[in-house]
Amino acid sequence: MKRIAVFTSGGDAPGMNACIRAVVRGAVYHGIEVFGIRKGYNGMIAGELFEMSSHSVSNIVQRGGTILKSARSKEFMTPEGRKKAYDNLVAHGIEGLVAIGGNGTFTGAMIFQREYGIPTVGAPGTIDNDLYGTDYTIGYDTAVNTALDAIDRIRDTASSHDRIFFIEVMGRDSGYIAIQSGIAGGAELVMVPEVLTPISEVIDTLQQGWSRSKSSSIVVVAEGDEEGNAAQIAEKIKQQVEGDVDIRVTTLGHTQRGGSPSAQDRILASRLGLGALEGLMAGQKNVMAGIINNELVYTPFEDTIRLPKPINEDLLRMVRILSI
Amino acid sequence: MKRIAVFTSGGDAPGMNACIRAVVRGAVYHGIEVFGIRKGYNGMIAGELFEMSSHSVSNIVQRGGTILKSARSKEFMTPEGRKKAYDNLVAHGIEGLVAIGGNGTFTGAMIFQREYGIPTVGAPGTIDNDLYGTDYTIGYDTAVNTALDAIDRIRDTASSHDRIFFIEVMGRDSGYIAIQSGIAGGAELVMVPEVLTPISEVIDTLQQGWSRSKSSSIVVVAEGDEEGNAAQIAEKIKQQVEGDVDIRVTTLGHTQRGGSPSAQDRILASRLGLGALEGLMAGQKNVMAGIINNELVYTPFEDTIRLPKPINEDLLRMVRILSI
Amino acid sequence: MKRIAVFTSGGDAPGMNACIRAVVRGAVYHGIEVFGIRKGYNGMIAGELFEMSSHSVSNIVQRGGTILKSARSKEFMTPEGRKKAYDNLVAHGIEGLVAIGGNGTFTGAMIFQREYGIPTVGAPGTIDNDLYGTDYTIGYDTAVNTALDAIDRIRDTASSHDRIFFIEVMGRDSGYIAIQSGIAGGAELVMVPEVLTPISEVIDTLQQGWSRSKSSSIVVVAEGDEEGNAAQIAEKIKQQVEGDVDIRVTTLGHTQRGGSPSAQDRILASRLGLGALEGLMAGQKNVMAGIINNELVYTPFEDTIRLPKPINEDLLRMVRILSI
Amino acid sequence: MKRIAVFTSGGDAPGMNACIRAVVRGAVYHGIEVFGIRKGYNGMIAGELFEMSSHSVSNIVQRGGTILKSARSKEFMTPEGRKKAYDNLVAHGIEGLVAIGGNGTFTGAMIFQREYGIPTVGAPGTIDNDLYGTDYTIGYDTAVNTALDAIDRIRDTASSHDRIFFIEVMGRDSGYIAIQSGIAGGAELVMVPEVLTPISEVIDTLQQGWSRSKSSSIVVVAEGDEEGNAAQIAEKIKQQVEGDVDIRVTTLGHTQRGGSPSAQDRILASRLGLGALEGLMAGQKNVMAGIINNELVYTPFEDTIRLPKPINEDLLRMVRILSI
Repeated sequence: MKRIAVFTSGGDAPGMNACIRAVVRGAVYHGIEVFGIRKGYNGMIAGELFEMSSHSVSNIVQRGGTILKSARSKEFMTPEGRKKAYDNLVAHGIEGLVAIGGNGTFTGAMIFQREYGIPTVGAPGTIDNDLYGTDYTIGYDTAVNTALDAIDRIRDTASSHDRIFFIEVMGRDSGYIAIQSGIAGGAELVMVPEVLTPISEVIDTLQQGWSRSKSSSIVVVAEGDEEGNAAQIAEKIKQQVEGDVDIRVTTLGHTQRGGSPSAQDRILASRLGLGALEGLMAGQKNVMAGIINNELVYTPFEDTIRLPKPINEDLLRMVRILSI
Repeated sequence: MKRIAVFTSGGDAPGMNACIRAVVRGAVYHGIEVFGIRKGYNGMIAGELFEMSSHSVSNIVQRGGTILKSARSKEFMTPEGRKKAYDNLVAHGIEGLVAIGGNGTFTGAMIFQREYGIPTVGAPGTIDNDLYGTDYTIGYDTAVNTALDAIDRIRDTASSHDRIFFIEVMGRDSGYIAIQSGIAGGAELVMVPEVLTPISEVIDTLQQGWSRSKSSSIVVVAEGDEEGNAAQIAEKIKQQVEGDVDIRVTTLGHTQRGGSPSAQDRILASRLGLGALEGLMAGQKNVMAGIINNELVYTPFEDTIRLPKPINEDLLRMVRILSI
Repeated sequence: MKRIAVFTSGGDAPGMNACIRAVVRGAVYHGIEVFGIRKGYNGMIAGELFEMSSHSVSNIVQRGGTILKSARSKEFMTPEGRKKAYDNLVAHGIEGLVAIGGNGTFTGAMIFQREYGIPTVGAPGTIDNDLYGTDYTIGYDTAVNTALDAIDRIRDTASSHDRIFFIEVMGRDSGYIAIQSGIAGGAELVMVPEVLTPISEVIDTLQQGWSRSKSSSIVVVAEGDEEGNAAQIAEKIKQQVEGDVDIRVTTLGHTQRGGSPSAQDRILASRLGLGALEGLMAGQKNVMAGIINNELVYTPFEDTIRLPKPINEDLLRMVRILSI
Repeated sequence: MKRIAVFTSGGDAPGMNACIRAVVRGAVYHGIEVFGIRKGYNGMIAGELFEMSSHSVSNIVQRGGTILKSARSKEFMTPEGRKKAYDNLVAHGIEGLVAIGGNGTFTGAMIFQREYGIPTVGAPGTIDNDLYGTDYTIGYDTAVNTALDAIDRIRDTASSHDRIFFIEVMGRDSGYIAIQSGIAGGAELVMVPEVLTPISEVIDTLQQGWSRSKSSSIVVVAEGDEEGNAAQIAEKIKQQVEGDVDIRVTTLGHTQRGGSPSAQDRILASRLGLGALEGLMAGQKNVMAGIINNELVYTPFEDTIRLPKPINEDLLRMVRILSI
């Protein structure tokens, strides 16, 4: 393999730049030429490829976002789009790809490989930590700490005013960010998509807190919760509880996607970027590099896409004990 | 004056604890007894007074929120409520008050003084910086930095995806937080209640950016803007602009009220807490301690309540120049 | 078991409070009485025990340091000291102990158990991550991020001035903090006690960087490095390199011990606090609770004390590749 | 004036990039061509000039350091050096300069203007806040907050161990950073170059604290203090105090120069960058733009260089009161 390309795709995540850097510097170290592709599959279709060197990735390890930019591509879902992408890769002599993204990205890569034979190795870049095949995804630790920082700030004002706060965090269909930021933030309750928490149970928990003279309470809600989003849940509770309850809602939103990556995310991203590159060099394809129990492993895209990644329900038990 | 009391009232703000500490330690230094009142006027009515010492305020200078808790009190708006409050103060031998809060707090103190003669000196504690009689209020600098941190994070993801973000910040009827966090955050536009920015002008600004191939844009919206909140403004724009515009909205919410206070807020709070105390000792009443041009000044409550605090419109001009 | 006590000992670490909270709330949850002991073994000797409730640990999960205070105790190394400690525990009806600390702490507990039969389960609280029997220790992740934040700041000024910086981080005889903060910080070289890096190799690495027109370089040095501390190493290099090299040295020092714990440290501390408590309840003694591959495990004190915890030398290889 | 150039010189400071951005975007706004000069006067001599556009300064407002790099230039102190610099400016058609730096920078500019007539307007960029002619310098607020963050962290460990910490902060001959970070950090004592604090007074203060059962103490020492640096002062105290005192020393060092600039620094830098540019356009020369009492003012270089900037000694009194 003489020349490869790297790109980021799907939602951006802190640590993607550290991952790009590891791919590029690893390639330089191993004597392989490396190109960057801008804006994911869209850039592959539009021919936005450019050669990268060791200097291209100087001073980016600490930056949030992705210097290669990212996008979700509708055109790549069409045969015409993939044909253009392939032609561009051939024109630039690209023999293999490192794709940094999530399941949408890997699905595209799998189809592309089937049609055109270009091998791709993936690195899991998403704040949601919803990918089977790795203990943690790139960006997850930073997102949890960002959510936690917000929870800490809100607790200041919650306890100054004896208020109840519902805080909605990201995670799509996954409760990972919610459960970890909730435990770390000392939340009274965490609501995740994986486990149904009926409204009646939320009310019970809050009332038990009041009976123990807890003056303020924080409930962390994952965005994909079955009972609705944080605002809807708060509304239901206001309707069902008698008397005057001071409930506020904050939706943390896109702040969770940005920021300088944490140490763990930069290290994880560096290991996975290098791991993806060296996997590609060793003949791997259609797999995602991951770290499980501190070991580098490769998992077929079809498994990362198909298999669920359950949360640790012991942690939900811990929330109950710790908020006693 | 032998014994005074201190309390916090209204919305909490980072630095209130540093201010309480300065009042308490200043009192100890000057040989005056000092009581704390919990939960603002509500606690005054309920008799939640307790003696404080130098140790009571150890290790709080860095904490957000207020250890005395805060509340908005409906009961204090009634003559019966104020009567109970007065009786409690008399029962505890309180001869003067330091009130940390905003205009609602000072209005209450002014009426109370008129009825019962208890002198009060105020310290301006609110993140909104909307009080006449001081260049800055306690909590404002921290809130601006918290908003800025969020804007910085969102810019990471905005520029990774070539998106437009509308970010709503706090400030009630005041554009101070918006204008300062917007300039510091490199926003393309800042919308404040003090100056009408028609939707058509927002669209023009965004389109000028696109024509100069700006790939992402950030608009900071103060919560009290005449054109509506950030979500409403974004909706109007989506309807009026042709083609596919990727606009996202984030409302920062209560995160802006919390967090460890900045250096400037702790210093300001310390100066104003001490200034309020020493003003009270010197016979001041019905005034708010403030810092104007780095000098301690006292402004009558009726002025802080009545007079507007205009924002510096030069700063709005600067936003336009800097986002060119 | 009806009544237990918890204490912190040795150097403090961020997350110790989260661990104390988990022990106390877990005990309340399981219907066990729980006492706190102030200042480690010194407080045990002096009788500084006090009953704790769920409220005792409110609002501490986010705080650095330890509310129980910590100390290294010379008196506990004497039989007389331990006798007094035992008498105090008996007087208070304490039947078991949770000790949060490092190897010094666990050595004391082991001897104490042998003499007096009081069972102790430990939780690994130290920023150094030098304890066998757990993947990570409480405080380590925070310390790495604190060191990383400093490295990021120094890189700003290093690259503005084309300078070389030697940054000394903590870790006693362990290179964990150095290797992780070094990789995450994009250091050109990391010097750890576990692997000898001769001065000549340091000079080679720096000169290779210059030949590739790297304008600034960062070398992270663990405090226990064989070639000396950062200042001594920098001095040796200045003497051996010809010409004018602008080398600066920063020793991060005790800032690495403090600060609000990271999400990972709070979760780890919570799991280990609860794990230590529940181990003690289940009859464990002379063991440390740890998390290995995301599973709770108990390791005999004698192993945690005796067995080395090697660093992953693959990570040192990664430093070389990534700084190319 | 058709074409100007901007450069940074001397020690770097957070906010310099925001200042460069304001100069460049202001020039674009006013229809003036703008060049950047790399590495201060050294780059002027070496001809490292390049044209800048609005895009050159995208996404830098939040970055520490200076994208133009900085240096102290010995060659510019020679007539030959200045001749080369002048020739380069003429060759590039530069008609005026904006110099971001401190007194060394302005002294050079003044001599240069006298010899060659090129007008320069300065912007005060230094963390030390030691320049007459402006209330605050660019970088100062960030440096104070960085020092404060370190003090907060150290307080965690100081109070966990009942220790005394001496923390040395930057500031060269100025006590500004020390006094502000000391007040904000709740220090027991602050030692600044402007006021002699004899060792005996330090000991008295510490002992008064012990007598009031303060268990830990923090002394902030400015690097230019007459009694020596923090390590020397701590050593003197250990020798003069009887008994076992646990004193630790931390020198914060270059971490104080870096980091993302605070909101106030970005706004100040923006105002001063624009102010320097517009002053230059209006015919100003040999002056520094500053903000005094929230108004833009221009002060002759000879005054900024010659006149002292005294610290507010009231603040030292406040340290004593607040640490009671």
